[in-house]
Amino acid sequence: MSVNYVNLDKSDNFKKLLETPVCQIKEELSSDRIKKYSASAGAGLVYNFAGKKVNNTILTLLQGLADEQQLIEKYKLLLNGDVINTGEKRMVLHHHTRGMKLDDVVSEGQDMTKFYDGEKKKIYDFAKKVHNKEILGSTGKPFDTVVQVGIGGSDLGPRAIYLALKNYNKPVLNAHFIANVDPDDANNVLSSLNFETTLFVLVSKSGTTQETLTNQKFVLNKMEKANISGLVPLKHFVSVTSATSPLAADTNYLSSFFIDNNIGGRFSSSSAVGGCILSLALGPEIFERFLSGAREADKQALNSNIFENAALLDALIGVYENNVLNMKNTAVIPYSESMSRFPAHLQQLDMESNGKSVNRFGDRVSYSTGVSIFGEPGTNSQHSFFQYIHQATSIIPVQFIGFRKPQIDADMEYQGSTSGKKLNANLVAQMTAMGVGKDDENKNKNFDGERPTSLLHADQLTPETMGAILAHFENKVMFQGFTWNINSFDQEGVQLGKLLANKVLNNQMDDVLKSYADLMI
Amino acid sequence: MSVNYVNLDKSDNFKKLLETPVCQIKEELSSDRIKKYSASAGAGLVYNFAGKKVNNTILTLLQGLADEQQLIEKYKLLLNGDVINTGEKRMVLHHHTRGMKLDDVVSEGQDMTKFYDGEKKKIYDFAKKVHNKEILGSTGKPFDTVVQVGIGGSDLGPRAIYLALKNYNKPVLNAHFIANVDPDDANNVLSSLNFETTLFVLVSKSGTTQETLTNQKFVLNKMEKANISGLVPLKHFVSVTSATSPLAADTNYLSSFFIDNNIGGRFSSSSAVGGCILSLALGPEIFERFLSGAREADKQALNSNIFENAALLDALIGVYENNVLNMKNTAVIPYSESMSRFPAHLQQLDMESNGKSVNRFGDRVSYSTGVSIFGEPGTNSQHSFFQYIHQATSIIPVQFIGFRKPQIDADMEYQGSTSGKKLNANLVAQMTAMGVGKDDENKNKNFDGERPTSLLHADQLTPETMGAILAHFENKVMFQGFTWNINSFDQEGVQLGKLLANKVLNNQMDDVLKSYADLMI
Repeated sequence: MSVNYVNLDKSDNFKKLLETPVCQIKEELSSDRIKKYSASAGAGLVYNFAGKKVNNTILTLLQGLADEQQLIEKYKLLLNGDVINTGEKRMVLHHHTRGMKLDDVVSEGQDMTKFYDGEKKKIYDFAKKVHNKEILGSTGKPFDTVVQVGIGGSDLGPRAIYLALKNYNKPVLNAHFIANVDPDDANNVLSSLNFETTLFVLVSKSGTTQETLTNQKFVLNKMEKANISGLVPLKHFVSVTSATSPLAADTNYLSSFFIDNNIGGRFSSSSAVGGCILSLALGPEIFERFLSGAREADKQALNSNIFENAALLDALIGVYENNVLNMKNTAVIPYSESMSRFPAHLQQLDMESNGKSVNRFGDRVSYSTGVSIFGEPGTNSQHSFFQYIHQATSIIPVQFIGFRKPQIDADMEYQGSTSGKKLNANLVAQMTAMGVGKDDENKNKNFDGERPTSLLHADQLTPETMGAILAHFENKVMFQGFTWNINSFDQEGVQLGKLLANKVLNNQMDDVLKSYADLMI
Repeated sequence: MSVNYVNLDKSDNFKKLLETPVCQIKEELSSDRIKKYSASAGAGLVYNFAGKKVNNTILTLLQGLADEQQLIEKYKLLLNGDVINTGEKRMVLHHHTRGMKLDDVVSEGQDMTKFYDGEKKKIYDFAKKVHNKEILGSTGKPFDTVVQVGIGGSDLGPRAIYLALKNYNKPVLNAHFIANVDPDDANNVLSSLNFETTLFVLVSKSGTTQETLTNQKFVLNKMEKANISGLVPLKHFVSVTSATSPLAADTNYLSSFFIDNNIGGRFSSSSAVGGCILSLALGPEIFERFLSGAREADKQALNSNIFENAALLDALIGVYENNVLNMKNTAVIPYSESMSRFPAHLQQLDMESNGKSVNRFGDRVSYSTGVSIFGEPGTNSQHSFFQYIHQATSIIPVQFIGFRKPQIDADMEYQGSTSGKKLNANLVAQMTAMGVGKDDENKNKNFDGERPTSLLHADQLTPETMGAILAHFENKVMFQGFTWNINSFDQEGVQLGKLLANKVLNNQMDDVLKSYADLMI
């Protein structure tokens, strides 16, 4: 396969999109369109885009853009182990952690399917032994709690998924998370724990993450100070790290599971980074179902027809909204309290991947790349920032996520409808209101409409659905990166802050840094 | 006092700002500037704006804009009970709940100081009796848990403040919150509770909020189904509502506390809406200290000199960034895990207040009003979307919040520094990196800098500091609303969604609404 990596503004279809008249949602929106403007995302997840500012003319050009930018071909090359992460000169292999591949891929002499499956099996075996009480705490008590110590990609995704699924199936072990170097975070979490029955999962690919190592030392210190007879702190720790990291060499841990350099933190939820804590907390069966949903979505994303590939279409409409309609934000609103922290994960996934100003060759691009992402669950957000979405001077497209059934089978009727029905009545009411609006002579009560919306929907938030939602957004972000011709898989923008923080800690400050430090330290 | 309410684009100073050359942070930033560009926010809270794209010329014009738009005079009129909320024809009296006033204000024949102080005293008396075990659950057991049932302004502010202060002082009662009409929210919270020892606080000003009444019925139902001998469900409920609401008339509640129509939900944290749960959970002394901090910030906000009024200056710089520099987002980043939910509260406060397209007279404005607000705590956010802030094509100003001491006095040293020092080293490193940047021939490792930052800092996140931070932002939002000549105190944009949701529930749908409903219900 031979592909060309070219900037968005070289695309003929993109140029035509810039010249094509913008369409009006309120003129287009109809029962027929709501039925037709729908694309599968895999695993029962469906993307409805009837509320977007697109029509058949624009969709044809978006299909042309996808073909011209060879998005599916580039996805296939990524799957096959091309060095897509040009900045760090690495492969991009997160799909392989859920068994999605076209051919075998070998990295540094290692068959990567064997590597990922092998680590997964080690984790599953370990988790089962913990659950069966074959593996106990150092004072002989069974574990009832697991705490992830990690930050960024080692925290946001696993945490969001744990919260999303803990009401689906009662956790086997209760999970907690320590991420922030703020000592109040660790102290707060530790205050409620019984060290004898708690297992810690230390996650750091490099084995050098400042916050994570500090927090580990913090925990170890507290365990020692607790002065519990027979307690061996490190025997309450497993590590998830790369095989070459300093952590991996330390045999004092209860166990170690390995990750590799071909997966960035924000794409690591389906690797051992998510797999270890999720298998311990929810069970290997639940994690396996989560992976199967992600794999289904990955397969769907291979389709070159935008009407049969939700991730691809979602990506292209996002580019259209950003680069043609000049909309620089997207709100992600799950109508599901269980998904309360998923927008925070997506914020990282999308903004860290596509918040770039140079293309994959290191040349500055002359167009806008990634948008800002934020969100809170509905209906809560209706009582918060939806005023802004309906009536502000800036337009924010909304990506709704909804489920036909609640997770916990204990709903009740009040005034003729269940809570679940009220929830979804609000969801569809918001989609309609944002698109169609309502004229009013009192301009303060007028709704212009023309606020773009889309809906990812499924029957229920199951492990499979959660996997598919995660993979949908991972693939959307990837396709957008290809469309903009940027590298979505490095993060050089985080380096300068680290460097300067170390200068403060090592007392090597220039005047400006010193003056700021004098305010705070 | 006679004031003129005029649109921003009529202002001479604003026109001059549009013509004034933009200044470069990296050229201006110096040790001297960091010391000088600092304004008091009251109660020990200080606003540092050395990292903003302003110089003395621009600041002089911003002072001129403040004077021209009569911002302090309008604040005084608001304090004195003018009908500032023109849409709903109401006063705006949240300052009075913390004792901030210039003169007595009478609303509907009632002296409002007496009203707010009276309800506060009722709450304090009630809370003390609960704490002293003079008031018990209906089966004779003392209360150990309090649950707020409310949404939007009845949820986000009180929840954020509870989380912010629960590590400062061990809670007297543990607090939980049920907001979402999603049944998984209530079921999840209720699953961990002992009904006999739980007190619920039902908060709805109108007494008709769909989600809140549904959730109350949900809770009552679960309590009845629990079949606990002697349990009288409504005797585990207090209500916080307006004196004229249907709830207020019901004498079956354990107690009722009143709020009034002169305070919107998002400004109600210092009223009985926040006061009831916070006094029960944290104690009246803590809530009283919180109010005193807010009052100090309110007093500081009376100063007409922008260098001595942080809320005013923060507001004006925000307008400059939005309307001159064309920056439409602001990230709010507390370097404090305890403040993890404060950005969500601020998102509501700011976006619901200033996400408007018409001025206070109902005429459409021709300029941009409120910005989008989002945020997560540092250092977590460094490992998430800070890549975007450093290197994306869109620029997002960052409002940092930091404290010199952690809340919990149990920090530890590792590799020569405490966790708290590492936290703040990162904070000042980020401020420096965003402003100054770093040139690199490899454009992928290049940092342009010129990302505006500001810092609100204090010694510690105490009740007083939390009150001052809350009031700072409430006053900032108010001053921005005055500057844009909009009404920051109504929210007509939430009405259409409510109307359409009821149409779904009452089966009165048009084709579009029905087709969306068919997807989800």
